[in-house]
Amino acid sequence: MIQVGINGYGTIGKRVADAVRAQPDMEVVGVAKTSPNFEAEQAVKKDFPLYAAVEERIELFDEAGIDLAGEVEELVEASDVVVDTTPSGIGAQNKSMYEEYDTPALYQGGEDADLVDVSFNARSNYEEAADADHVRVVSCNTTGLSRLIAPLEDEYGVEKVRATLVRRGGDPAQSGRGPINDTLPDPITVPSHHGPDVNTIFPDLDIDTLGMKVPATLTHTHSINVELTYGADTEEVRELLKKESRLFVIPERLAIDGSGKLKEFALDSGRPRGDVWENAIWGESLTVEDDELYLFQAIHQESDVIPENVDAIRAVTESADRKESMETTDEALGVGFDL
Amino acid sequence: MIQVGINGYGTIGKRVADAVRAQPDMEVVGVAKTSPNFEAEQAVKKDFPLYAAVEERIELFDEAGIDLAGEVEELVEASDVVVDTTPSGIGAQNKSMYEEYDTPALYQGGEDADLVDVSFNARSNYEEAADADHVRVVSCNTTGLSRLIAPLEDEYGVEKVRATLVRRGGDPAQSGRGPINDTLPDPITVPSHHGPDVNTIFPDLDIDTLGMKVPATLTHTHSINVELTYGADTEEVRELLKKESRLFVIPERLAIDGSGKLKEFALDSGRPRGDVWENAIWGESLTVEDDELYLFQAIHQESDVIPENVDAIRAVTESADRKESMETTDEALGVGFDL
Repeated sequence: MIQVGINGYGTIGKRVADAVRAQPDMEVVGVAKTSPNFEAEQAVKKDFPLYAAVEERIELFDEAGIDLAGEVEELVEASDVVVDTTPSGIGAQNKSMYEEYDTPALYQGGEDADLVDVSFNARSNYEEAADADHVRVVSCNTTGLSRLIAPLEDEYGVEKVRATLVRRGGDPAQSGRGPINDTLPDPITVPSHHGPDVNTIFPDLDIDTLGMKVPATLTHTHSINVELTYGADTEEVRELLKKESRLFVIPERLAIDGSGKLKEFALDSGRPRGDVWENAIWGESLTVEDDELYLFQAIHQESDVIPENVDAIRAVTESADRKESMETTDEALGVGFDL
Repeated sequence: MIQVGINGYGTIGKRVADAVRAQPDMEVVGVAKTSPNFEAEQAVKKDFPLYAAVEERIELFDEAGIDLAGEVEELVEASDVVVDTTPSGIGAQNKSMYEEYDTPALYQGGEDADLVDVSFNARSNYEEAADADHVRVVSCNTTGLSRLIAPLEDEYGVEKVRATLVRRGGDPAQSGRGPINDTLPDPITVPSHHGPDVNTIFPDLDIDTLGMKVPATLTHTHSINVELTYGADTEEVRELLKKESRLFVIPERLAIDGSGKLKEFALDSGRPRGDVWENAIWGESLTVEDDELYLFQAIHQESDVIPENVDAIRAVTESADRKESMETTDEALGVGFDL
């Protein structure tokens, strides 16, 4: 069993912990957190050994009556792999600690690409993470773009990708985020960072991305244009994408018109936390004309990277090949809606 | 003086009335409204003769103590041109009335293109409206796209336009509109109607448009990609667009990051109702690379078609050529920010 430590137990960390526990070949050694709050209490309730991420704050846990299993260094030492799910920039600060204990570490998309040996998307470049010490699981948007591009690149070749990302103003729990009643070019310059980030997965890809922020919290929504190298028609591309386990082509009959109904559908389907691990592609929008593909997809920012983190654990430990890992992850989590 | 009647006195009609009154060569004969509300009372306060648009509702005006100048047929008969600013679909119902009195009529973008002799955008096809009986001033989004395409087509040629339109959920006063906290592909199919609508102005243009609705009310926001036929660089295109009176390239120094600050700027500038008659193009976003232009622009849905309605009046009455009309309209309204 691969012993996995999780440093950070917020939006991503708590999901990674549940996903790792669900795998047949992994165990959660423990999770680390900086301060006690409702998530810390739930970690204890779920019997995840809880470690203090910052020594100076140990007494806060004592005051809150939360028992600690130890300090984060002990967690790192006891782990075969650490998944760092701390806020952007903190992962970079933690790097020397992981090196000290010689524990391979996975970072999240908010860290710089040059912090790590390899940026990772399971479908696109699983093999490159073999035996790496520092791996970055790319961000939710880059994951969503990479998953879509990979089968198109394999099957038809991609001349150019142009994507407009309508970004949620914040996660549902980020109550202080904006904008309110506004649409902000964000960033206001072109391209946004997402295109170059996709190039960490597909170095030679011609891709331009533009970002805007809007007053919505449920998902990001992408407006995608892909110029294909070889001819294709709409139905061929639909069938190709439907074969990918982490692409969910929403059937028209479900009448899911936006992020709200998509999330409601995920909750009704019994998904933990209402998570949508797949890219959710609106079937009606999927259109190919003159070798140009257009579609809309929703990206659930809190959860689409979770299966990727699980696969990255197997990739760095070389404990399974891509196909085997993705199938195991998907089976254990329940990726793919039962339609 | 051209005698102008305005049928409908809502979001567009009240702005057209003010804009026509501001012109040196036009007079407002009167405005017609279906029922009494705050806008009807303001029309009377502004000394616009008020006509009942529907005979059966005359008593509602009597009850509200609002004096009427007559019924809409009298207004149509007394007018050289009627501007129909009624809700989508009502203009089509009114067509026979305008024909009965042999009064040329201008309709708004919500009517079907095949209702009219010509769809109109001043910069792009002013001359085609000469002596027409039925002219449609295209919608706010189509106006915004046409104004941008016209100079690019003239100067560089356009191979293809790809635009994602992030649409406001409703006008500020449409308090019952949604979505709330959601991003809706709208329409969910590709292309949206905007591309074909631009083809009523540029019949041979290759254009694909995608639409989404978000919980914001202040403006539409367009993410634009234009493949140019002939080479250009960013600064050349910026200078070209800055020369167009109805394109406002927002200077970086103003630090206008979204629709909210744009509207605040318009209000601070003393614009009536805070209107932004121009396409507002974010200067920082304007980027040309490999002959592809990208930019973001805000389209103020309540007001960008107002100068176009005024020009359409001169176009159908053949009382001025394009250049003269646009200059007169812009001067009388105050189009162009004093920076």
